[in-house]
Amino acid sequence: MPKVYITRRERFNAAHKLWNPNWSEEKNFEVFGKCANVNWHGHNYELFVTVKGTPDPDTGCIIDLKLLSALINEHVIEHIDHRNINLDVPFMKGQMASTENLAVAIWGELEGVIREEGCTLHSIRVKETENNFAEYLGE
Amino acid sequence: MPKVYITRRERFNAAHKLWNPNWSEEKNFEVFGKCANVNWHGHNYELFVTVKGTPDPDTGCIIDLKLLSALINEHVIEHIDHRNINLDVPFMKGQMASTENLAVAIWGELEGVIREEGCTLHSIRVKETENNFAEYLGE
Amino acid sequence: MPKVYITRRERFNAAHKLWNPNWSEEKNFEVFGKCANVNWHGHNYELFVTVKGTPDPDTGCIIDLKLLSALINEHVIEHIDHRNINLDVPFMKGQMASTENLAVAIWGELEGVIREEGCTLHSIRVKETENNFAEYLGE
Amino acid sequence: MPKVYITRRERFNAAHKLWNPNWSEEKNFEVFGKCANVNWHGHNYELFVTVKGTPDPDTGCIIDLKLLSALINEHVIEHIDHRNINLDVPFMKGQMASTENLAVAIWGELEGVIREEGCTLHSIRVKETENNFAEYLGE
Amino acid sequence: MPKVYITRRERFNAAHKLWNPNWSEEKNFEVFGKCANVNWHGHNYELFVTVKGTPDPDTGCIIDLKLLSALINEHVIEHIDHRNINLDVPFMKGQMASTENLAVAIWGELEGVIREEGCTLHSIRVKETENNFAEYLGE
Amino acid sequence: MPKVYITRRERFNAAHKLWNPNWSEEKNFEVFGKCANVNWHGHNYELFVTVKGTPDPDTGCIIDLKLLSALINEHVIEHIDHRNINLDVPFMKGQMASTENLAVAIWGELEGVIREEGCTLHSIRVKETENNFAEYLGE
Repeated sequence: MPKVYITRRERFNAAHKLWNPNWSEEKNFEVFGKCANVNWHGHNYELFVTVKGTPDPDTGCIIDLKLLSALINEHVIEHIDHRNINLDVPFMKGQMASTENLAVAIWGELEGVIREEGCTLHSIRVKETENNFAEYLGE
Repeated sequence: MPKVYITRRERFNAAHKLWNPNWSEEKNFEVFGKCANVNWHGHNYELFVTVKGTPDPDTGCIIDLKLLSALINEHVIEHIDHRNINLDVPFMKGQMASTENLAVAIWGELEGVIREEGCTLHSIRVKETENNFAEYLGE
Repeated sequence: MPKVYITRRERFNAAHKLWNPNWSEEKNFEVFGKCANVNWHGHNYELFVTVKGTPDPDTGCIIDLKLLSALINEHVIEHIDHRNINLDVPFMKGQMASTENLAVAIWGELEGVIREEGCTLHSIRVKETENNFAEYLGE
Repeated sequence: MPKVYITRRERFNAAHKLWNPNWSEEKNFEVFGKCANVNWHGHNYELFVTVKGTPDPDTGCIIDLKLLSALINEHVIEHIDHRNINLDVPFMKGQMASTENLAVAIWGELEGVIREEGCTLHSIRVKETENNFAEYLGE
Repeated sequence: MPKVYITRRERFNAAHKLWNPNWSEEKNFEVFGKCANVNWHGHNYELFVTVKGTPDPDTGCIIDLKLLSALINEHVIEHIDHRNINLDVPFMKGQMASTENLAVAIWGELEGVIREEGCTLHSIRVKETENNFAEYLGE
Repeated sequence: MPKVYITRRERFNAAHKLWNPNWSEEKNFEVFGKCANVNWHGHNYELFVTVKGTPDPDTGCIIDLKLLSALINEHVIEHIDHRNINLDVPFMKGQMASTENLAVAIWGELEGVIREEGCTLHSIRVKETENNFAEYLGE
């Protein structure tokens, strides 16, 4: 029984800043530079969700991609798209709005949901710009 | 003497919202939907600046691309990258933070500066997402 | 009053073949090569619709991009996405399923609809592969 | 002796549908939606073949990329490019034309061939659209 | 009779330097910076050739894209791909190896050849990097 | 403590040829074809550096991306960008200028430097063209 990895890309556009509320404004600028701009900046994020499993003989698919897309939208995109990551997103509350933390938090939102469909979440990759992306494999 | 068009791409990451301060919150949401999120959202913008001219016989170039890049950075990118378009950007003050208005405003910042270098600005193209972009030709 | 060009990208995945029903199978293969494969082949098409106009002072926009996207979906995408261009698409009936003809036919579907919204359709660009695309400006 | 992974991208344009011949038309539409369009649809597929090995000291290469490309073309692309995956492709006969099954079947076509060249096939990745891709590692 | 624009992309990988042989080494470095590296550097160039015409009613095409590709390969790519633009390319002899000059020179190689096929060359676009490209329209 | 992978992309434009100095010109052309062009050719290389670690609770980051970018520039890009890989690059001296060898050599330049920052280098990926790339994981 072959194990195949299927990946679905979704996108979200969000505002954020790198800002540690326990630090002074000066320290925030010193550490994060322009990423700490008080009035925020933002990105077109790309989210790649990879699920691992064995193709169903009747469908040829590991998971219905319409379902996978719907799950990602319901549990992640609707809460973060056209939002402020620092202020508006429940699953990022109390955390630094870094790409690394986004990948870990989105794993947390999707792992159980995908397990309930009989599949295994393999990887969450978050691309912040054409030059930067983070990946989390659940370990 | 051939007329050639040379294009330089630069990038900026910014927060914005589509929000008309003369309208109620309700009307803003009705017209702009999720783009009116009160706490902002953001984009990785791509800016394409096209200059028209005749290649210099000594250099083969219409304009030194290092200079063109420096001018775009000095007059546009430094004022808008990692900023909030509605709050932080002098050349967008008092205007709706739409892609169309960005293209027109950036033309205004660059047209004279490029003319002083003996070249002609031909086009400003602003790409907001992989699905949306605006272009202004100065007319 | 500045004239700005705004472009919306939409996508459709379709089957087609280059096949002239007035020609023999031999002549079709001779002229179109593998593009005449009897059992079809297909593409991920990208459609770029460019509208020209003056930004509305209240919104900063030429046309509401949600509306533009909805119009393109209603009049084009729903009729061609996940379809066979030669067999299933009303606006391509009786025409060769070439990229050039797609661009002209999609212009025909959208020009009046966009005019009714008070805007001017400027260009239809259809990208068939990363190496081939066609553009029609209505002339 | 370092182990390096080299990847070659090739492309093919093909028609397909998701359609289980043991099911009624109704059930096919219910499960696969528009992907079950009777008259097919199609995609620009991208195929990424990754080979693992130690660079040859004389060439610096794991495998001659011209040879790798030729093998992929001979054993895969010539049989699937500008074809109908459900009807025309020997190595997909009797299987659902899903991206997952494509990845596994292409592995089957290439694994032995690449082994005969003294190299190890590491991964087959098939990208169906900009939003969907499948990967198979041979396990 | 609609006028449609069809574009074919081809690619070439070449070495070059920006170097004016009438200038001293010092002046070359002063003007061109790292682009004047004595031992060359290089690029993956993309070439976009746009042809204008009316679709043939029998084929739906302005020009057979296999023919257009073959013409571009015969007259341009074979002379410049995996070559040194300053040293090896007949149509660039005696000229600065700039993107602007490439666009004009490639126009010169293709305009007559495409005219002989009954079509009109509309534009040559040469993309040197993801940030820089030049376009020539023959005027 | 989650382990996250963060990737930074940098770019360099360089000339090279595949040429074994111990072989005759004939054998070089026989083995490497046009890649052995005596006067060089070149590429826009993309370099992807992946670092593995646990996000710092104060910053949310594994490594400051400004620092990672600065390290890659200091130790790799400044020595190879706008250079000739065969002639100008200290860390490639005496080696074939293949993509595979580039990946291994760049690992050698960065592994210790990144370890000194308390992080673990996970992967070096070098993309030579849109069709070819190599990856090295340090084993």
